[in-house]
Amino acid sequence: MSVTRAAGFLATGTTAGLKASGRPDLALVVNTGPHFHAAAVFTGNRVKAAPVLWSQQVLADGRLQAVVLNSGGANACTGPEGFADTHRTAEHVAEVLTGSSAPVGAIDVAVCSTGLIGERLPMDLLTAGITDAAASLSANGGATAAEAIMTTDTRAKQASYADEGWSVGGMAKGAGMLAPGLATMLVVLTTDAVVDPAKLQGQLEQACRRSFDRIDSDGCMSTNDTVLLLSSGASGVRPHAIDFQAALDELCADLALQLLHDAEGAAHDIAITVTHAATEDDAVEVGRAIARSNLFKCAIFGGDPNWGRVLAAIGTTSAAFEPDRLDVSFNGVQVCRDGQIGDPRDLVDLSGRAVEVRVDLRAGPRSATVWTNDLTYDYVRENAEYAT
Amino acid sequence: MSVTRAAGFLATGTTAGLKASGRPDLALVVNTGPHFHAAAVFTGNRVKAAPVLWSQQVLADGRLQAVVLNSGGANACTGPEGFADTHRTAEHVAEVLTGSSAPVGAIDVAVCSTGLIGERLPMDLLTAGITDAAASLSANGGATAAEAIMTTDTRAKQASYADEGWSVGGMAKGAGMLAPGLATMLVVLTTDAVVDPAKLQGQLEQACRRSFDRIDSDGCMSTNDTVLLLSSGASGVRPHAIDFQAALDELCADLALQLLHDAEGAAHDIAITVTHAATEDDAVEVGRAIARSNLFKCAIFGGDPNWGRVLAAIGTTSAAFEPDRLDVSFNGVQVCRDGQIGDPRDLVDLSGRAVEVRVDLRAGPRSATVWTNDLTYDYVRENAEYAT
Repeated sequence: MSVTRAAGFLATGTTAGLKASGRPDLALVVNTGPHFHAAAVFTGNRVKAAPVLWSQQVLADGRLQAVVLNSGGANACTGPEGFADTHRTAEHVAEVLTGSSAPVGAIDVAVCSTGLIGERLPMDLLTAGITDAAASLSANGGATAAEAIMTTDTRAKQASYADEGWSVGGMAKGAGMLAPGLATMLVVLTTDAVVDPAKLQGQLEQACRRSFDRIDSDGCMSTNDTVLLLSSGASGVRPHAIDFQAALDELCADLALQLLHDAEGAAHDIAITVTHAATEDDAVEVGRAIARSNLFKCAIFGGDPNWGRVLAAIGTTSAAFEPDRLDVSFNGVQVCRDGQIGDPRDLVDLSGRAVEVRVDLRAGPRSATVWTNDLTYDYVRENAEYAT
Repeated sequence: MSVTRAAGFLATGTTAGLKASGRPDLALVVNTGPHFHAAAVFTGNRVKAAPVLWSQQVLADGRLQAVVLNSGGANACTGPEGFADTHRTAEHVAEVLTGSSAPVGAIDVAVCSTGLIGERLPMDLLTAGITDAAASLSANGGATAAEAIMTTDTRAKQASYADEGWSVGGMAKGAGMLAPGLATMLVVLTTDAVVDPAKLQGQLEQACRRSFDRIDSDGCMSTNDTVLLLSSGASGVRPHAIDFQAALDELCADLALQLLHDAEGAAHDIAITVTHAATEDDAVEVGRAIARSNLFKCAIFGGDPNWGRVLAAIGTTSAAFEPDRLDVSFNGVQVCRDGQIGDPRDLVDLSGRAVEVRVDLRAGPRSATVWTNDLTYDYVRENAEYAT
């Protein structure tokens, strides 16, 4: 499982003392080679946290030796001092790793942070924690690393996929601020496959586009989202590009749904599938509009198959459709047909956690699925109390 | 107050039996002339309720003799049969009014409906109610009309403005699905001023643009939004266009804030003022992005001046700004300066109902205010239970 499933990686998770709870809060993932290819996708938010600004620079050459991740503070909106803290973090990782292995430069160390925005990190605790972490790196450390990056997550998120002689694995954290472009999260993926470095970035972007980019828990986009993919080449096996892409797609989809299932305060996991759209973009736009309707999300929480709110959300989009040709079903019951009253809503059972809403736009051949959650008392509670 | 403040208007509110609660649910407003000029603004939602489709046709000639409004059912997504119901409603109003005054054609009767989407109206009850209503029309009936259009509103919303010899008045309903373009609501405005019919539509649009279009309670846009302005000319006074516009602006702003103050489940009324934007559109885009952030709205409910969530919302916009030149204050305390930590958040007092968030984009001369509410347990409860 996780980031140490693939050969050529060491990892660990420790407690640096950044969290008031005293839970693990620092993770380190190290690529021991022989290759050091890497790719990354970052938040689309224009307000980017210091570690995102730093890691974007680090990834410019497509090479990465290590990733250090901390929970307990996002280091976002912390100004030049916050950026200097991130730089110092990477320098410290490089120093402690150089002692134990081949020379590592700070420019090959990505930094990820998650937690409250607008507070400086306690650097003395963080650097001491990094020193401790370096001493506990292990080829079996993936699980402890996955645990150390949790914030409001209730469980660690890991996945892996193995083929003949090579594998991919990964870990993710994220439970709130989940929205496309990307969901609010940190993700580290590793592989021991021998990859084509020129293709790696495109392969990661494709895997993200239909996984992390399609979950929209609460419509909010974070300042810290980062997905990293590190390749060690340690298996010596070069899979076919199609097989590698398929494994990466499966891994990202698995982790994305784990994020969704653990979304803050959610009582239902909702898959919104939009079919017969003129374009895939139309299908995604309609799916997101529904996923972001608070009225729709409250209705699902209340067990109400309120298709009127679905149509009201569809009507705000620019997708191709005719209002009197819209079909909507909840868990297989077509409650809306031709844009008007369909089968009795009493037939719909929303008592289970999984809800499937299907919208037929009857406007073309394309489709897409967007995942979201319901809006609950617990969501309000968790996000009203988060900073206090 | 209300729609009968201006001379030349009769109104009433009655109980037709459309609501299970047995509360008043039918309102009638009649213009007795001598003029019958009218203007209207309708929802931007592409899924439009039958009464919106009908009233758009009726308003094509800028003339209106009466408006019938019902709560207890939106008559949205009800297909051709629903449209026929609206047509029949207008026909019935025309018939009963023709008996008591000058001939009225159905084509001069606007229809407004509000309530649950996707259910047919009980037409026998509705037409009987209209007959009753016509018999109780009164020059003092504005207050009962305002009461009859309430849905989840906790109080009737009325306003008026009088100048030398002429006046404007109005009523509004709306407590949820409040979003720009327009807020989810029905509004009827009346005036006895002698107006220029060629200018009336533009004057109404301008008044709406900075009032109803700037309140965004829950980001959801309705299928039924309608704002109607009827002019009787009964005062015989022709005010200067600037004075008339000012009165209309004030009236709409007053009613818009009444809608906001009564938003479903809200515990705080939040004014988000964006200053020094490059354009007014930029200021509005930033204001709306903040107003639609569930995380921000939960934080306000929790009494937390979480400026990080404000910056995360600003970062999703395309407005002109530099992340390291953003200033944010909550109730006068500048908690974020130059995109980073400002004055201590402990200084902010969010215990009162009114909250003012000010964002300085430092990018130009324009500004705008968007109003919203916090996201509370009661919002979730009301909208989870609404249809049941």
